[in-house]
Amino acid sequence: MQMNPNKDTRLCISLSGRPGNFGLRFHNHLYEQLGLNFYYKAFTTQDLPGAVTGIRALGIRGCGVSMPFKEACIALVDEMDASAKAIDSINTLVNTDGHLKAYNTDYIAIAQLLERHNISQDTTFALHGSGGMAKAVASALRDGGYKHGVIVARNQASGSALARHCGYEWQAQLGPARPQMLINVTPIGMSGGAEADDLAFEEDAINQATVIFDVVAIPSETPLIVRGRALGKQVITGLEVIAIQALEQFVLYTGVRPTPEQFRAAVAFARG
Amino acid sequence: MQMNPNKDTRLCISLSGRPGNFGLRFHNHLYEQLGLNFYYKAFTTQDLPGAVTGIRALGIRGCGVSMPFKEACIALVDEMDASAKAIDSINTLVNTDGHLKAYNTDYIAIAQLLERHNISQDTTFALHGSGGMAKAVASALRDGGYKHGVIVARNQASGSALARHCGYEWQAQLGPARPQMLINVTPIGMSGGAEADDLAFEEDAINQATVIFDVVAIPSETPLIVRGRALGKQVITGLEVIAIQALEQFVLYTGVRPTPEQFRAAVAFARG
Repeated sequence: MQMNPNKDTRLCISLSGRPGNFGLRFHNHLYEQLGLNFYYKAFTTQDLPGAVTGIRALGIRGCGVSMPFKEACIALVDEMDASAKAIDSINTLVNTDGHLKAYNTDYIAIAQLLERHNISQDTTFALHGSGGMAKAVASALRDGGYKHGVIVARNQASGSALARHCGYEWQAQLGPARPQMLINVTPIGMSGGAEADDLAFEEDAINQATVIFDVVAIPSETPLIVRGRALGKQVITGLEVIAIQALEQFVLYTGVRPTPEQFRAAVAFARG
Repeated sequence: MQMNPNKDTRLCISLSGRPGNFGLRFHNHLYEQLGLNFYYKAFTTQDLPGAVTGIRALGIRGCGVSMPFKEACIALVDEMDASAKAIDSINTLVNTDGHLKAYNTDYIAIAQLLERHNISQDTTFALHGSGGMAKAVASALRDGGYKHGVIVARNQASGSALARHCGYEWQAQLGPARPQMLINVTPIGMSGGAEADDLAFEEDAINQATVIFDVVAIPSETPLIVRGRALGKQVITGLEVIAIQALEQFVLYTGVRPTPEQFRAAVAFARG
């Protein structure tokens, strides 16, 4: 944050069920480094419509939206960016003079990562999961021209719906085929979860893959990523996802794009 | 503010027609000095009910309320402290788990100042003004047992109503009597106003008074105060009023009372 806040300081916030420190540390660090008169504050709420009313009434510039508010927020905004429309899910609100436009920078981050890591459109993949974030990843894959994928999900209703929505096949468990890219979008490997120590894919599939992509960010060194690194696979981590999605929020709120070096320093600070 | 905000940082705000820097500098300086994990942000709004809804929904801990919201806020709170009830005017909201209690720390500050400056209850006084702040001052005088006063106000409707409310006499202009204490609660002497260079009382009355009290805070060295000092009178300034009312807000929000030295340093910082 700015060392000397004043009456012109602008506020950005987040709304989530369980506020964390990453976003606020990331944004406040960059405000300070770039000399921007902003401050970032994390909130939770029991009253989402009331919180959004407050965002409008107080002129709060931007708001990160996390679980469990990503879908409920849709009815409360004025405009949906293509990134939010693509997956019917919001993770970012930008308030311009009371007009609330909704984005999904998770979707934007996934699309960017597939490009940055030079993942060929011919790559075969299996995506494990069928929740909100799985929808962001599958939609980014579909819109990126990746045609050869399966959605693996124990839940037939959500799994087959997501597969159908994106034009992929659904499987309750990974079949005998061995995809080139394995993508985990389940809580498997997440700190504090029941499956924190588990691999999100079976060992043989990991051995035969070339790219390991795990969106779990806490920790970003999940058992799946650790195994992938040990086997010399190309890895894409959840830390990259949350960092890039936060960067794109920052650009939307402030209109300023940090340099790659400033971005890396902010990520390092936010994790610390 | 805290150097390293985190997810547990609590927010206090102000709502006013024209946000200034004094309050936010005062509060943020004390948060930092006392190591309290709070941040203070000044807002304006076009939608007071929406802003109060946001205070509840976001769990904002406290809110300073300034013109033009002091009366309109009454319908939006859950409980009125005696300080707010005494003058039907709010300048402070304290949010405890969604329960909004309203205070008026202007009233509290005036009462404290009369005591600190050892103003005897027998003191005769003339109070110039009939607006919201005049009501706070007149009510504090009445409740402090000061019986011998006149309300001087060109506006007969508001002037006589205030005088009646507090049991004082109303005069359109100061009569021939020469009160011991002169109190200015008009914008006369306020920076940027039409009467910035004017004295709020006639010269002869100033010469014969013993106490000069001016609630104008910007600047606190009004022509009236400057003249009073030059004549060796006892003076009470608007800076003392806004500083003490801010201090009492700080105590209500945080539960912590700064030492006199910390208080003085925060006032000096807030003015700087």
